[in-house]
Amino acid sequence: MTPYTHPPVLFGRSADDAPLWARLDRLCDALAATAAERDQAGGHAAAERELIRASGLLNLTTPRALGGEEVNWQTFYRTLRQVAEVDSALAHLYAFHHLQVITIRLFGTPAQQARLLSDTGSRGLFWGNALNPSDRRTIATPVEGGYRIDGPKSYCSGSVGSDRMTVSAWHEPSQSFLIGVVDTRAAGVTVVADWNAFGQKQTDSGTVHFDRVIIPDDDVLIAPGQPATPWTTLRAQFAQHVLGSLYVGLATGALRAGLAYTRERTRAWAASGVARAVDDPYTQLRYADLWLLVRTAAVLSDAASARLDEAFGQGHALQAAQRGEVAVAVAEAKIAAHRAAMAVSSGFFEQTGAGATSQTLALDRFWRNARVHTLHDPIDYKLRDIGRYVLEGRYPEPTSYS
Amino acid sequence: MTPYTHPPVLFGRSADDAPLWARLDRLCDALAATAAERDQAGGHAAAERELIRASGLLNLTTPRALGGEEVNWQTFYRTLRQVAEVDSALAHLYAFHHLQVITIRLFGTPAQQARLLSDTGSRGLFWGNALNPSDRRTIATPVEGGYRIDGPKSYCSGSVGSDRMTVSAWHEPSQSFLIGVVDTRAAGVTVVADWNAFGQKQTDSGTVHFDRVIIPDDDVLIAPGQPATPWTTLRAQFAQHVLGSLYVGLATGALRAGLAYTRERTRAWAASGVARAVDDPYTQLRYADLWLLVRTAAVLSDAASARLDEAFGQGHALQAAQRGEVAVAVAEAKIAAHRAAMAVSSGFFEQTGAGATSQTLALDRFWRNARVHTLHDPIDYKLRDIGRYVLEGRYPEPTSYS
Amino acid sequence: MTPYTHPPVLFGRSADDAPLWARLDRLCDALAATAAERDQAGGHAAAERELIRASGLLNLTTPRALGGEEVNWQTFYRTLRQVAEVDSALAHLYAFHHLQVITIRLFGTPAQQARLLSDTGSRGLFWGNALNPSDRRTIATPVEGGYRIDGPKSYCSGSVGSDRMTVSAWHEPSQSFLIGVVDTRAAGVTVVADWNAFGQKQTDSGTVHFDRVIIPDDDVLIAPGQPATPWTTLRAQFAQHVLGSLYVGLATGALRAGLAYTRERTRAWAASGVARAVDDPYTQLRYADLWLLVRTAAVLSDAASARLDEAFGQGHALQAAQRGEVAVAVAEAKIAAHRAAMAVSSGFFEQTGAGATSQTLALDRFWRNARVHTLHDPIDYKLRDIGRYVLEGRYPEPTSYS
Amino acid sequence: MTPYTHPPVLFGRSADDAPLWARLDRLCDALAATAAERDQAGGHAAAERELIRASGLLNLTTPRALGGEEVNWQTFYRTLRQVAEVDSALAHLYAFHHLQVITIRLFGTPAQQARLLSDTGSRGLFWGNALNPSDRRTIATPVEGGYRIDGPKSYCSGSVGSDRMTVSAWHEPSQSFLIGVVDTRAAGVTVVADWNAFGQKQTDSGTVHFDRVIIPDDDVLIAPGQPATPWTTLRAQFAQHVLGSLYVGLATGALRAGLAYTRERTRAWAASGVARAVDDPYTQLRYADLWLLVRTAAVLSDAASARLDEAFGQGHALQAAQRGEVAVAVAEAKIAAHRAAMAVSSGFFEQTGAGATSQTLALDRFWRNARVHTLHDPIDYKLRDIGRYVLEGRYPEPTSYS
Repeated sequence: MTPYTHPPVLFGRSADDAPLWARLDRLCDALAATAAERDQAGGHAAAERELIRASGLLNLTTPRALGGEEVNWQTFYRTLRQVAEVDSALAHLYAFHHLQVITIRLFGTPAQQARLLSDTGSRGLFWGNALNPSDRRTIATPVEGGYRIDGPKSYCSGSVGSDRMTVSAWHEPSQSFLIGVVDTRAAGVTVVADWNAFGQKQTDSGTVHFDRVIIPDDDVLIAPGQPATPWTTLRAQFAQHVLGSLYVGLATGALRAGLAYTRERTRAWAASGVARAVDDPYTQLRYADLWLLVRTAAVLSDAASARLDEAFGQGHALQAAQRGEVAVAVAEAKIAAHRAAMAVSSGFFEQTGAGATSQTLALDRFWRNARVHTLHDPIDYKLRDIGRYVLEGRYPEPTSYS
Repeated sequence: MTPYTHPPVLFGRSADDAPLWARLDRLCDALAATAAERDQAGGHAAAERELIRASGLLNLTTPRALGGEEVNWQTFYRTLRQVAEVDSALAHLYAFHHLQVITIRLFGTPAQQARLLSDTGSRGLFWGNALNPSDRRTIATPVEGGYRIDGPKSYCSGSVGSDRMTVSAWHEPSQSFLIGVVDTRAAGVTVVADWNAFGQKQTDSGTVHFDRVIIPDDDVLIAPGQPATPWTTLRAQFAQHVLGSLYVGLATGALRAGLAYTRERTRAWAASGVARAVDDPYTQLRYADLWLLVRTAAVLSDAASARLDEAFGQGHALQAAQRGEVAVAVAEAKIAAHRAAMAVSSGFFEQTGAGATSQTLALDRFWRNARVHTLHDPIDYKLRDIGRYVLEGRYPEPTSYS
Repeated sequence: MTPYTHPPVLFGRSADDAPLWARLDRLCDALAATAAERDQAGGHAAAERELIRASGLLNLTTPRALGGEEVNWQTFYRTLRQVAEVDSALAHLYAFHHLQVITIRLFGTPAQQARLLSDTGSRGLFWGNALNPSDRRTIATPVEGGYRIDGPKSYCSGSVGSDRMTVSAWHEPSQSFLIGVVDTRAAGVTVVADWNAFGQKQTDSGTVHFDRVIIPDDDVLIAPGQPATPWTTLRAQFAQHVLGSLYVGLATGALRAGLAYTRERTRAWAASGVARAVDDPYTQLRYADLWLLVRTAAVLSDAASARLDEAFGQGHALQAAQRGEVAVAVAEAKIAAHRAAMAVSSGFFEQTGAGATSQTLALDRFWRNARVHTLHDPIDYKLRDIGRYVLEGRYPEPTSYS
Repeated sequence: MTPYTHPPVLFGRSADDAPLWARLDRLCDALAATAAERDQAGGHAAAERELIRASGLLNLTTPRALGGEEVNWQTFYRTLRQVAEVDSALAHLYAFHHLQVITIRLFGTPAQQARLLSDTGSRGLFWGNALNPSDRRTIATPVEGGYRIDGPKSYCSGSVGSDRMTVSAWHEPSQSFLIGVVDTRAAGVTVVADWNAFGQKQTDSGTVHFDRVIIPDDDVLIAPGQPATPWTTLRAQFAQHVLGSLYVGLATGALRAGLAYTRERTRAWAASGVARAVDDPYTQLRYADLWLLVRTAAVLSDAASARLDEAFGQGHALQAAQRGEVAVAVAEAKIAAHRAAMAVSSGFFEQTGAGATSQTLALDRFWRNARVHTLHDPIDYKLRDIGRYVLEGRYPEPTSYS
């Protein structure tokens, strides 16, 4: 198989992180071996979750002071891209675990971080989320020493099989969300695996039902009515960049799969006059165009990561303008990656021929995964945000999606 | 459901053919009712084959003198487009039956036509094909009173469950193909259903094995070494236009499905400021662009049909230049349809949101079907043919694909 | 030079109209001979106006009963496309003359038509316009037996050097326009040639100043406050289709110019390995794509003409729905032609090499002309109209632009 | 006017280089003030050449040891992009001066560099080139102590008004070029200004005629037959990156011009329902797409500069593989910039309306300049090079263009 570092202009890896990349390559090889089959079967990938857990990579974004590896964001998002190359559904689980870790780092007090994250590392916990801001059916009611939450929350990625979740619950009086933490196995918490999309099948997404679940004050990250700051609204950017990075990985994976097939199995078209498919002038042209989409997405993704690193370094002092620059860079990267993922996952087949459509190979999974995942939020409103910025210097309005 | 005649600028229907359209609409409604399920299940659609047979539409291209309806090609290809809107796999069976009827009309003597086609109508036969010109493993050996054929033939669309087939067999001494007719149930003919693509699942494609099968001279349509004429090479254009028309249908079906979902189920995006998804300015823009692709493909498809009608009217007197004009028009239509099918089947999801990716709806089938079917032969070589024509007036070289 | 009928699939001409095409070819050849020079010089093309007048083609849309040729709209718009191929500025004059004739036919009483149009033919008059609906500075004041009009009107195409003009003047009390007819040489009418764009230089556009000009009731076509009907609002569609047809001509002219250069002068690129530029596989591919844009625009243009012919045949009985179908077809054709004109006029250079950028050849004029002319009204609002129609069956709202 | 540093995500400037940027901004402001007029007039921009000379920026790439500023390549190419934003013709002169300095650094002995470059700085010399490898009419004949060169050399950018030139002359016996240095004012050297393209008018391109001009051995940089090395073939990459960077500047300049016009002068379209053009949802969308093209080109351009910096740092030890990586990165950046320049320079007009086509503004110059300059060598062969690399890891073959 082609090493993850080829072509070299795309996959810059620092020598310092060699042990990290080695661990990552091993994990990716293991996931790749069963990815096509598991895509067909769907369901919960219990064994592969354990591979991820065993890799130690769940500890990558936890602060060093709390026992983590605390790599910079550029490195983290590159690891995500690589996992997504081979298995974008498990990449989503991997990323959403880290997104919850980031959430604790952004929203939690130092004490909460210490408690929730050192524990995460030492016990090897896997985080999921129950945060979907479009679903206000989970209700928060103040009780002595905390809140009681009740009702369902849909589209909870990574909830099935998780150890712990962040959760949002609607607080009617303040017309705002409480954000807190719950143990997935706590009494009153039921996760129903009801995800039934034609792609990203193993994202362990479900509806979480809460029945008189108590969140003590210690586990409340954002109390109802607590005002947002540039720092806390950075979470939406980490989340958006998870999506964009995953799309880069999908696009890269699809490109590699197509290239490998063309190189190894495609026969030159009779009318082409060449002996090998790789010498077909149109095949060369079309792959160049697909490559440029992937390359662009990767470069813009790195640029966005760099912005996130800078902004994150500001801590609570982060200003709205710098947060806005992050939002623009993340949106640019996400648009490019969205387009690359869609174009490459559908387009490479033009250069493989019909043989590549065998169900055994399941090479349609790149398109199905990309198609499902890129519908998270509409690309045209990302473009609108960019347009407003370019025309008048307006930054994207901080929301759950921007 | 939206009538097949909407939007009206696309679906011109002559009043004269009202009874035909009524029959067609009934068939399409019946196929549509189970299309999503059958797409998931794959396999042989025995019951739906019988619906097609019962519709009488298999008799559409048979000459009136032989008991058929003998509609013009523009009408026939429009019926094909409509079937493909609701079920592109069965549309392929429907079309390939007619392609073999056309083959008899192009290659057969008057006596052969009379025998093979009146019989087709009266007995309600379904034709398949075993003609794949890229596979030379079926060998023709001259025997007393005809030829013996032996060996396998792959990618035989519609062979599974057919009554009769056209077949090609390689004749080594003349380095050319014999084309003849066999009964699918004849001794020595075995059809193995081995089609396993992720789309167009129910096209009943298989490998046909021939074991000492005799084709008597009466059933030989083209003897080995028999020179091609503009008239006989028209077959490749009928076949290419079957593909292009099927893509138009796929694109149209995908567009209708997307529009229906957006109208009925998509909620306006929060940041859009409009109350209904159909009022979103970007949704309007994007659907217009998808529509223009479909509209263009349909118009070019009709133009190609008209060329085919004119050329077919020339009979054996058809000249190479007029055959060349057909080839250009068919190529133009096929390119436009290919692109429309790919763009629409993937693109409409941007305007439906993630809910449309439920496996229950199986709305990904349009993309899967289009992706598989459009790989029949490479679009870039169609473009090259057009380019040569535009630059120097060269007509596409008559081959099995052009 | 390549005949206007090549490639034949594009330029269908009925044998019945052979004398018309012969006249048209002669005119076009004459305009083509000086088009590049006149593009550089700009200004008023007095001699070429006389060529058009002498061709008799100004009489093409005048009713037979009034001494005209009264060709159908499909034929007229094809003549326009051909003139625009060689000189899109004079094509605009040609078309705007006819648009005013159409205006008389749509707005005028039988008596007005008889007087204004038979006179047009017998005296060989050239019509211009002073109708710009975005400029309300020309004011209509009721006077005994008619109206007095005063004030300037900008962007009056074809006004410089015209014999007669249609004019709109704002009527403050009714908040509506009066539409009438004036003699360009009448007292109080001053035409100032102030058009200074980088393209479409010889369109004789100017600002017309009216100083106490009387329009007698006999010359009033639409009185202030007179309600619009589907029939009268058809004018906007004729106007829009003038634009779209002109863009088709521009695209075709650019393509022909590029093809001719590549065939005759471009040298094969060293790295291509072919001896002639026309054999370069990429050149063939790219010209095919440009051709498909032109071909699509031409086909949709013809389809829109056919709709106009049908709707025009309804006369005053025309219903809103049929008018709406026209508007959709005209918008589709205009969008396709706009895109074709822009893409081809800029794109063909990729296949000619740098030699084609010599100022002597002035091959940039296609882009400059297309760029200026396609800014008449925004393409995105055409797309929006189409989107609304496709989504909900809404027809474009009748305005001056739709 | 918008500062060159807006939008900030594009125009990273290091604080260290503040004095450099200040000088550059002053020069650019001065060039911008007359750019539209000079574009119309064409010819030799003597005064503006002096502004460039006076800025001291001609010394930017000369080694510090020889009195230069020796900025890194990333910085140099960014200055080029900025000059090209305001005046892409003079940017070409600016860049070609530096390209000849680079040529001396790549080809010259330490002694030659010392003599030719320190002198360049101290005397404020402007270099042009007479190197066109496609023209072999300039012939080198060995003479005592050097070579005599005779014959014309076409397409010599920056030759008109230069002080010194690099020159190539064909050496028949070895079937290779001699590369040397001549004084533009030397006896026997005649520069004929014969550039007549519709864009890039003031690039001072001409045909240089040599009549018995002696190049002493000291001024021979590459003797006939001297084998190329990865180091010397790096020159083609510096040249290609000059082109790509210039296109980035053109695209950026066009975007800025369009944005400024839309912000300041465009009126909202009546049917849009918004009060300001900048609030039009389609205007926002379209500018976002144009911006993403520019942004991508800029980012890839910086990435290519970084590769050049690394490779240049290797000196004569540079290996073919690293040279190949440079070639890939430079090609990627050039393709993206070519496309951005063409799309933006033509596309921004859709969002300005027709008023922006006034000849006074000369806003078509961006398209004309981009159209002429991007025809230097065909983009499809850049894509082919990338395709070969992606498919099989083959590096572009070192030629004058790759």
